[in-house]
Amino acid sequence: MRDVPIGIITVSDRASRGEYVDRGGPAVEKWLREALSPPWRAVARVVPDEIPAIRGVLEELCDREECALVITTGGTGPAPRDVTPEATELSCARMLPGFGELMRAVSLESVPTAILSRQTAGIRGRTLVINLPGNPSAIADCLRAVFPAVPYAIELIGGPQLRTDPAVIEAFRPRSASG
Amino acid sequence: MRDVPIGIITVSDRASRGEYVDRGGPAVEKWLREALSPPWRAVARVVPDEIPAIRGVLEELCDREECALVITTGGTGPAPRDVTPEATELSCARMLPGFGELMRAVSLESVPTAILSRQTAGIRGRTLVINLPGNPSAIADCLRAVFPAVPYAIELIGGPQLRTDPAVIEAFRPRSASG
Amino acid sequence: MRDVPIGIITVSDRASRGEYVDRGGPAVEKWLREALSPPWRAVARVVPDEIPAIRGVLEELCDREECALVITTGGTGPAPRDVTPEATELSCARMLPGFGELMRAVSLESVPTAILSRQTAGIRGRTLVINLPGNPSAIADCLRAVFPAVPYAIELIGGPQLRTDPAVIEAFRPRSASG
Repeated sequence: MRDVPIGIITVSDRASRGEYVDRGGPAVEKWLREALSPPWRAVARVVPDEIPAIRGVLEELCDREECALVITTGGTGPAPRDVTPEATELSCARMLPGFGELMRAVSLESVPTAILSRQTAGIRGRTLVINLPGNPSAIADCLRAVFPAVPYAIELIGGPQLRTDPAVIEAFRPRSASG
Repeated sequence: MRDVPIGIITVSDRASRGEYVDRGGPAVEKWLREALSPPWRAVARVVPDEIPAIRGVLEELCDREECALVITTGGTGPAPRDVTPEATELSCARMLPGFGELMRAVSLESVPTAILSRQTAGIRGRTLVINLPGNPSAIADCLRAVFPAVPYAIELIGGPQLRTDPAVIEAFRPRSASG
Repeated sequence: MRDVPIGIITVSDRASRGEYVDRGGPAVEKWLREALSPPWRAVARVVPDEIPAIRGVLEELCDREECALVITTGGTGPAPRDVTPEATELSCARMLPGFGELMRAVSLESVPTAILSRQTAGIRGRTLVINLPGNPSAIADCLRAVFPAVPYAIELIGGPQLRTDPAVIEAFRPRSASG
């Protein structure tokens, strides 16, 4: 059984220049280590807040590395340098607005500035792409909210089966798959 | 008083080839029979999961049959064959994002995979178009959530007056219609 | 310390022709007088429900008057003359979907027809633009819901610092500003 590759992209000017220790990428990986059962492996990248750089690595992880899932962290706010949602939308064939709606609703329970996040999710080929904010505590809140739907989403788009540790996350698969 | 035509489109490859008994369309019609007072009549169609086929019948029901409301069922998920929201957006002049937001929020109380639905609503001329999932139980949940706003929406876009059975659904009309 | 200009645009055919006393614009200004600490000043305009007219005054308030915030009221519904969200999207470089989601969710607690509102928010240069409905009671509900995030949003896009009266609205600024 082959390891399922999962991409983790930290989007941050400062982290990509080494001026700042990346906290977002490791927080995503730590959460996945607890939630996902083997075999899977992380494919981690750090890129600056530039649309071509983000798209380049996102498309590499989808098309060449054949990641089942790519999670980005950072670059989802309203500041001029925040362009991760734009890059994601340009690289995805279709968007899943329910991810952003739920992640904002969940973050709103902690901070009223959650409405400023433009984070979204989309599909490129057989890869599910999810944007997370850069803040480690928001990362865990968002992943806990959306992850029960992630394994089934990946199956629907033709990807491999992901297994979760049900003590952490119960993956949901509807009995009737119409809709 | 003329019957108000209401379109019901089942979007399903298998149902359109007769390999599968359509359960979505009849579930929509049954719900409407309970919620709407006469006179109205259903104009039912079954189409495969193809954008041109969906658009063809959607536009026929809006423009030629002059339906006040068209409800689609099926084809709203993330799978590659699911294209109902794309077809709806291409045929509608404007979208109403609040319908999809509310329907996903309501479905999320039953299943965490509700965030995978891309269902939406839009306006074509004097017709309100609403996408529902294919699953009969989700159909009822979604209709119950959004229908109180449907008669007023149809009036605002110049359509006929729909009357509901208030024991099932209380249609809401704001006293002050500004906004 | 220079007064911070804040734009208030009433979008209404009838109000712009003087056939109707504008209630939306004064309701926005009254709410801001209570919530915001000096120094700031209102720049108020009334325009008809026409995309070029709305865009003209919106862009004037952003680019020439250098408003930190522009609030529109009216024209957000599904009726054919309602075009404020379209004009806003055409004049803004990026949209913030979380504002519309939260404002609809809050209004839905009062009226089921809240899902018909297409109100949104966006960014033009250093100006935050927020659409509100025309109804004065909905205006207060929407502003109360989103305003805690507004001062921080304006700072993130390079605008001036707005100070609120904490007895009315507590402006929120996250300690860690990553994301």
